[in-house]
Parts: sequence; structure tokens; C-alpha cells
Amino acid sequence: MTDDHGRTGAPAPEPLTPVATVPRRTPAEEARTLVALTNVATLATLSDDGGPWASLVTYAALEDGSPVLFVSTLAEHGRNLLRDGRASLVVAQPSPDGDPLAAGRVTLAGVARRPEGDQEQAARDVYGSTVPGAQYVLTFSDFSLYVLEVQRVRWVGGYGRMDSASAADYAAARPDPVGDARGAVAHLNADHADALLAMAQALGGFPDAETASCTGADRFGLDLVVTTPRGLAATRVGYAEPLTDGTQLRAATVELTRRARAG
Amino acid sequence: MTDDHGRTGAPAPEPLTPVATVPRRTPAEEARTLVALTNVATLATLSDDGGPWASLVTYAALEDGSPVLFVSTLAEHGRNLLRDGRASLVVAQPSPDGDPLAAGRVTLAGVARRPEGDQEQAARDVYGSTVPGAQYVLTFSDFSLYVLEVQRVRWVGGYGRMDSASAADYAAARPDPVGDARGAVAHLNADHADALLAMAQALGGFPDAETASCTGADRFGLDLVVTTPRGLAATRVGYAEPLTDGTQLRAATVELTRRARAG
Repeated sequence: MTDDHGRTGAPAPEPLTPVATVPRRTPAEEARTLVALTNVATLATLSDDGGPWASLVTYAALEDGSPVLFVSTLAEHGRNLLRDGRASLVVAQPSPDGDPLAAGRVTLAGVARRPEGDQEQAARDVYGSTVPGAQYVLTFSDFSLYVLEVQRVRWVGGYGRMDSASAADYAAARPDPVGDARGAVAHLNADHADALLAMAQALGGFPDAETASCTGADRFGLDLVVTTPRGLAATRVGYAEPLTDGTQLRAATVELTRRARAG
Repeated sequence: MTDDHGRTGAPAPEPLTPVATVPRRTPAEEARTLVALTNVATLATLSDDGGPWASLVTYAALEDGSPVLFVSTLAEHGRNLLRDGRASLVVAQPSPDGDPLAAGRVTLAGVARRPEGDQEQAARDVYGSTVPGAQYVLTFSDFSLYVLEVQRVRWVGGYGRMDSASAADYAAARPDPVGDARGAVAHLNADHADALLAMAQALGGFPDAETASCTGADRFGLDLVVTTPRGLAATRVGYAEPLTDGTQLRAATVELTRRARAG
């Protein structure tokens, strides 16, 4: 078979037993989750010659995911936004391990506008309460608040995992409460390899799995990579029900393990 | 006094004894040093509607600091560069501690062009040898090499530390061999507070210093912050001579300590 990048390779082995379909985060939910994970992003604005200008910014997000910026008119990006509000923001997963192109990031593009009335107060409040150092920056008289009205959303989850989301879907989605699961995933791999193998064999469709490791966790379930005599394969196992709070992750994986060992 | 941001505050205490002037990295050297520290950046390009588009990229740098990009024409930034080479790249200090706006970053802006001949080979070689995962990506048939011809350079070292550099100065500068000194700085503060205090008192102009901590190290010397009965102040102490290799940092600080204690 040939992949998106024109390379060829052997197909991955198929599951040998039925596997329940486990929902995934929508692209909009992936985007909202990344935006909620950090407060540092890169902003692209238009310089006076119409060329692009990239700069580092801190941001917070309103309830609908619209980024709130607070920029100085002494800085080029601040002067650029005064002249032309068109802007794009890229948020990358903080501190990715290994290959940065295998990690998640999202581009938001739209128009930055000065908020007014209730939105101005909401923007100031969320910026002040969530951005490190904001109490210091909010005293700067040359800084102005902006809210990026998101018009386009492009999420990239890593190699071959990417999609666009509509502005309406982005605004309606909520961040996955599981958030950054890398600590939990590392714990599962370090201390519960036997449980992961049981899940892959009993629930993931690979009774011939020899090893299993977890590559991700979200509010619906766990992503697993298994080795089998037939080759390497990816599968996914779901919790009894979607999580509504990140603190439920531990109990949900315990339940998954119990179900796998009973199966 | 009033600072750049319109805030007022008490002036910092002045040194009580003469302090030798210790050179600093030029803005061009600061920019080259940041560009050499990592391989992940954010690219700003122009979308088909002329608006800015921010995206995550990996890069390497040619000898003159020109960034080498390798982007997919399946991705929006790749399509954008095919249509209009104007581009900007922001490189931020990897994994800053605490307030991200207090950390260094640099914006490069110019035109991305497809390299040819010797430059094409040099670009491919440096990308392949320095970007994590490049050996994998270089097999993708939909990716194209670009070299960003740098025309504008804007360095921001943190609050109140910023400057522009000419394209010629950027190309002629070299990365500071000390590179990311945060490990060394943390070690000095954790284990050598007495030596730092001696430097501040004997060489830094503050014989009344009560404590001293190191806030940065470069090829010329150490930045110190001191507490005195007169208030908080910043000073700087220089090595016997500028370093040409990062491994010389330890010997240079030992020499500084010896000189401070003899003084």
C-alpha cells in the first residue's frame, strides 16, 4: 500500500476478534483541548508591507475558545493588529517528548478585535486569572486586549492525524477534561504492562498480542500499540462510559483492567 | 522614574565601587544563539486570502543562520510558500521556566526560496543531521526544501530586553558557544552562592551586597542580581577572557571566584 507521503509498506495486521468502536475526540475537541493545555502560543500578523510576522504571545481563552491576547503597541505585533486585525495563532502541545512533529498542535485563524462591554471584562478576567505573570503585565499602559474571532481551525495530531473544524464546532466543543494524559500514560506503561496486554487481548481484538503499550488516553478510552506474531498493530479500548472529569481516569482504567481479565 | 510601560518605581541602587564593563552578546548573536538552541519553530506564511497563517515546523540552520525548512505541499503552509515565499519564523527558548514572556525569542522575516545546487545539498545535509526524525521525513515525496533568506531580525530577551539586528549582522554572527546556560546557572545558585556573593562584592561594585544570585551566563561573563540594604540591583562580572567553547565555562567561573576572593 502507499501512504499519503508516497511511501510503501506492509499493511498492519487486522484484529482477530470483534472490537467495540470507541469514539474519538472530534477535531474541534482536539483543538479546544490543546488550547486549554497551555497559555503560550505564536501569533502571526501582517506587517506594514503585507508580509507575515511571527511572534511569541501569551493567551487565555474565553468560554467559547476564543483566544484573548494582550499585546503592546510598542511591539510589532501590536502595531500590526492596530492596522489589520487578521491574525493566526498556533498552539503546540507543551514540552513534547521526542519528535516535535509527532506531537499535537492547532492553528486558529481569524480576526482580532478589541473587546467591549461584558466581553472586555470577561477577557480581562480570564487573562488575569490564567496567564502566568498577567497581574504584572496588566499594569502596562501600552498594552491592549484583543479577542481573536476564530474563523478557521486546523488541528494536527501528529503524522497522518489531522483535520479541520468549523468555527461553530470549535466554539461549541469543550476541552477534554483528561487534558494532558502523558503522565498517566507513562504510569500505565511503566507499572501496568500486564493490564494493557490483557486489554489488548480480551477487548482490543488481538488475542495473539505479545506486548501492548499505551500511546494515548482521552475521555473515551486508551490507544494501544500491540506486537503480534503477524506484526505491529494499533487498537483502542473504551471505558465503561466517557469521563467527565480528569480524576476519573484512574478508576476507569481499573474497570477496563477488571473487564479485560474477566473476558 | 517611569519605565517603558508607563509604570513608576524607585530607582535601583548604584554600584559603590568601580565595575569593569563586560561586553554583552550583540542582538545578532542573541538571535543566532537562540536559533542554534532548538529545531522547532513557528512559521507564519500568507494564506490565499492574504491573511496570516501560523504553523509548527522543524528547521535547521545553514552556516549563515538561514533557516532550512522542509514542508509538505499537502499542508497549508506548503501551499502558501509555493504561492508566496514571504515568511516569518519565531524561535523561542526551549522549555522556559516560569513566565514565558521573560524568556528569549527571536523573529526572523524574509523570503523562503527553493535552494539549488550546492545550497540544496548543504540544506539537505544540515536538515538531515540536526532535525530529530529528519531521516523519516526526508523520505516523504510531497515535501520540499526551502531556505529562508533572512531580511529582518527582531530579538526579545525578556521584559525590556529587545533589539533589532541587520540581516548582514545576523549572517556574520555566530551562536554563543555557551548556548543554554540554565543548567550551569542553577548549579552556581544551588552550590556556589558564597562565590557569587564574593564576585558581587569584589568585582560587581556592591561591597554591601548581602546575597547574590546568578540570572544568566554567556561567553563574556555572568549576570548577577544582588540584595543590598539600599535595595535590589543587577550587575555583571566578566571572565578573564571570552569563552570560545562551552566546556570552558566551569574553569572561567572558578577563575572569577579566585579573583573575587583575592580582591
